Amino acid sequence: MHVLRINTRTREARTEPVPQTWERLGGRGLIARILLDEVPATCEPLGPKNILIWAPGLLVGHMLSSCDRISIGGKSPLTGGVKESNAGGTTGLALARLGIKALLLEDRPEDDRWWVIVIDEQGVRFDPADDLVGLGVYASAERLRERYGTQPAISLIGPAGEMRMRAAGIQNLDRDGMPTRISGRGGLGAVMGSKHIKAIVFDPPKGAKPPLVDPKAFREAQKIYNKALMEHPQTKIYHDYGTAAMTSMTSHFGSLPTRGFSEGYFEGWERLSGEHLREVLIQRGKPSLPNHACMSGCVIQCSNVYADEQGEIITSPLEYETIGLMGSNLGIDDLDVIARLNHEANDLGLDTIEVGAALGVAGRAGLLTWGDGEQALALMDEIRRGTPLGRTLGNGAVVTGQVLGVEQVPAVKGQAMPAYEPRVIKGTGVTYATCPQGADHTAGLTIRAKVDHLNPEGQAELSRKVQISMAGYDTLGVCIFAGFGFAAAPKDIIARLLRARYGWEDVDENILSDLGRETIRLERAFNWRAGFTTADDRLPEWMTREPVPPTGAVFDVPEEDLDTIFDGL
Amino acid sequence: MHVLRINTRTREARTEPVPQTWERLGGRGLIARILLDEVPATCEPLGPKNILIWAPGLLVGHMLSSCDRISIGGKSPLTGGVKESNAGGTTGLALARLGIKALLLEDRPEDDRWWVIVIDEQGVRFDPADDLVGLGVYASAERLRERYGTQPAISLIGPAGEMRMRAAGIQNLDRDGMPTRISGRGGLGAVMGSKHIKAIVFDPPKGAKPPLVDPKAFREAQKIYNKALMEHPQTKIYHDYGTAAMTSMTSHFGSLPTRGFSEGYFEGWERLSGEHLREVLIQRGKPSLPNHACMSGCVIQCSNVYADEQGEIITSPLEYETIGLMGSNLGIDDLDVIARLNHEANDLGLDTIEVGAALGVAGRAGLLTWGDGEQALALMDEIRRGTPLGRTLGNGAVVTGQVLGVEQVPAVKGQAMPAYEPRVIKGTGVTYATCPQGADHTAGLTIRAKVDHLNPEGQAELSRKVQISMAGYDTLGVCIFAGFGFAAAPKDIIARLLRARYGWEDVDENILSDLGRETIRLERAFNWRAGFTTADDRLPEWMTREPVPPTGAVFDVPEEDLDTIFDGL
Repeated sequence: MHVLRINTRTREARTEPVPQTWERLGGRGLIARILLDEVPATCEPLGPKNILIWAPGLLVGHMLSSCDRISIGGKSPLTGGVKESNAGGTTGLALARLGIKALLLEDRPEDDRWWVIVIDEQGVRFDPADDLVGLGVYASAERLRERYGTQPAISLIGPAGEMRMRAAGIQNLDRDGMPTRISGRGGLGAVMGSKHIKAIVFDPPKGAKPPLVDPKAFREAQKIYNKALMEHPQTKIYHDYGTAAMTSMTSHFGSLPTRGFSEGYFEGWERLSGEHLREVLIQRGKPSLPNHACMSGCVIQCSNVYADEQGEIITSPLEYETIGLMGSNLGIDDLDVIARLNHEANDLGLDTIEVGAALGVAGRAGLLTWGDGEQALALMDEIRRGTPLGRTLGNGAVVTGQVLGVEQVPAVKGQAMPAYEPRVIKGTGVTYATCPQGADHTAGLTIRAKVDHLNPEGQAELSRKVQISMAGYDTLGVCIFAGFGFAAAPKDIIARLLRARYGWEDVDENILSDLGRETIRLERAFNWRAGFTTADDRLPEWMTREPVPPTGAVFDVPEEDLDTIFDGL
Repeated sequence: MHVLRINTRTREARTEPVPQTWERLGGRGLIARILLDEVPATCEPLGPKNILIWAPGLLVGHMLSSCDRISIGGKSPLTGGVKESNAGGTTGLALARLGIKALLLEDRPEDDRWWVIVIDEQGVRFDPADDLVGLGVYASAERLRERYGTQPAISLIGPAGEMRMRAAGIQNLDRDGMPTRISGRGGLGAVMGSKHIKAIVFDPPKGAKPPLVDPKAFREAQKIYNKALMEHPQTKIYHDYGTAAMTSMTSHFGSLPTRGFSEGYFEGWERLSGEHLREVLIQRGKPSLPNHACMSGCVIQCSNVYADEQGEIITSPLEYETIGLMGSNLGIDDLDVIARLNHEANDLGLDTIEVGAALGVAGRAGLLTWGDGEQALALMDEIRRGTPLGRTLGNGAVVTGQVLGVEQVPAVKGQAMPAYEPRVIKGTGVTYATCPQGADHTAGLTIRAKVDHLNPEGQAELSRKVQISMAGYDTLGVCIFAGFGFAAAPKDIIARLLRARYGWEDVDENILSDLGRETIRLERAFNWRAGFTTADDRLPEWMTREPVPPTGAVFDVPEEDLDTIFDGL
């Protein structure tokens, strides 16, 4: 494995050995380490000093079920702090096969030209991207696959990233070539846009795989893990219903963001449920699919393919967060409409959470009638056209609130909240408040814990525990849902996999927590240097004051609990 | 003297004795003290926990020349930190005559009604303001003067403050009843708007004056100060040319912000000079006036009245900062056009510095052709209509840069820079970077110092010295130009005035610096609690990289100098 540095100004590439302090990290943890080592924390995120990083997790490369995720990161233009956003699809695997431990995109061009970077056995080259500029993600991906074949993995941005909108993400292909696995959060698409890179094509040599120190032990451990994952009841639920399985659960708790986070219960929730989604997809038949794997080897297959009644694919997958933020959050109860909004966001290269939250803020400002899908689509078109309103929305919920004069913006550290109402699921509220990434459900979702979610007591402890685990999984390249398998398998399963792959004999059953704690420590150190303080570890004030129906809950976890959550990390 | 608290939700008022720790402070220093004592530093600036404060300086009340300024402050919605913005006019005097050491507007209403607060001998009452909502500042002031007479002082906001735009200020009447003395900086108009107060009418009893412990000693000291001020050559310059006298000086140094801070020299500068302005005003004759006092008793009279060729008053005064930000910064060299832009900003209740900088950013984004006054006026009209673009501009330069995708925003801590290019006048750049208020020239302008402004060495020391003095003057209620008089008078002149007024026998010739240091300490403490760190004490990164013609200077004062500037304060 090596480090690949590409200077986007000089268009020079350099391969380097992996520094010792980077070796035992991958994915999210490695990104935090690199940022601390190489990026001035106070730099302008869209300026030449920011570095955009691709880093596969430690377990990536061998098609372990749900363990081939790619982490992309840098200093976030949305939060001003550390950012890692991971995705499924084929990019992680391709980097591992190319032997790339970390890819660093440095500097930025001084002229107006745009490029496609191609990375293969021969090395690195820059191809002009002039014909792709302004094209949507779908059309760009199609053209790139015509040009470079269907084999390579591709990371690319859409018009939103080109326009350096802070809600822009970076798309990755899934194993079917659909460009919809997005490293969506934190505006990394704008960072890629600032460097004038439209796409990166990762073309590993056929059959290449990262080495295994002990292939036999690896396969044994893999078998045990796979079995545990397969047998876990949650795997079946996600297989059948995908992430939309959450709709009924959040509805039950009164924690489904509704009409601009003004309510926690949506009367149309059943039409947004996993059950209903599955019915629609089965009824429509192919190309609609209720289960679909974004990565080769995944046994969960929580993804889906959503086609309209005429059999035209609209989006893949339709996920719970999108359903929440672009559905109930906008008062919309029609999956077809949500899928079309999702398609628009995908094609523009936008994070559906951030832009859905921004649309909710626009609704609060009276620019969107709740439930009016055509209006919502018209607002997405404003983004595409780059109008002042569109540019506002495309820069996320906080800027939208500032411009439109809306106080009730659901965001922390500048990043919009996912579809778990934090006044109700208070442990997740603690995660939103204290996670170095800004409001992020994948950083520590607590909704499954058997606790009284409305009781503020003990929520910080719960959040801490889950945040540490998730930071560990994100460093391993493990999907959030694979965690069920690892948790059910013998305690040393991750250690066994790492030992078999890398020969790290000193790794023990605490490795997940060790990696998680190290990752959060590094992230907090970067944020601290960037100027973050405990003042940033807060939910917005209005959520501590305005009760959310029907529970009438406010966020009332004591600030002291927030400020001490990572003590002794 | 007493403290007056008004709760804008319950509409109850309460008079209280002055707490001991507030007694020896006034104006800017007192505002910092009150914020620290009473406002949670992390609160939402437009929420119910922010307090909007009026505090006359310590010397206000006796028509000492140029010493009757009113400080208005609170937590800034633009910077998120401490904010004090002072103005001339009649408000300071009226508060002192009412015996008000500090007026605190607390909480905010929960309904949609708007109010005028009337404060007189009888006490405090709330009058409905429904007929004033949406009216411009000029029409509102006229109606208020019809209703309450021409005697009272008035603080009021325009449509921008009602819309809670972050570039909105609070206007005060001058001694001729013109509503154009603006506490412009930091978005305090939005705070007043958040509390649904359209105006406050201050109606002191006739002839009332704050007590003097030793009237004879006071008048003696006053005489000495007045003489020193009158004899100072700078007084004559400001009398003749007003603040526009700066145009030739900044042009000479290459530090006149031009076309969105992309250059430091404007080829049309002579048409923007104090000399040309004076010519125009003399040639046009009354009501145009080249010199005019905003406060009774002022011998400097740096203000002016600017009427068009038909004798219709457009604005009063036309100031250097407006000429810089809405003139050269937009490539406009026509004083008539600048005066009209100034009129629009005044009528909307907007800070001309902030909105001028925002227009400059719009110019960088291609939404304004440099030099096109009609386009600039059309953009001001967008603000009036509250369109998405208008709301963007009305929220200041930083939001405008975020929305329009412009990196080159001239701002620190969210507040736009005045008309001194900090890459060239580096001491003022240090002030912009380190002042707790955000970019602010009145907090420590260094352009008159006999130093090499382009040399980064020693600039922090210079800035520190001037920042301390200015914080002292702002606490006394002293106009920036009165400082020339105090500096030329005997060293103990301020101590003599304070002793004569308050009987503070322990006050000595260090009082200006003592007050200044105390003020900055308090302000930094509040900002620290609000989450500010040294990471916020920086000029924008692009100014450290992009040279400004014609000097080719970048901002290169070492960060260590910035971080240690207030050591041992």
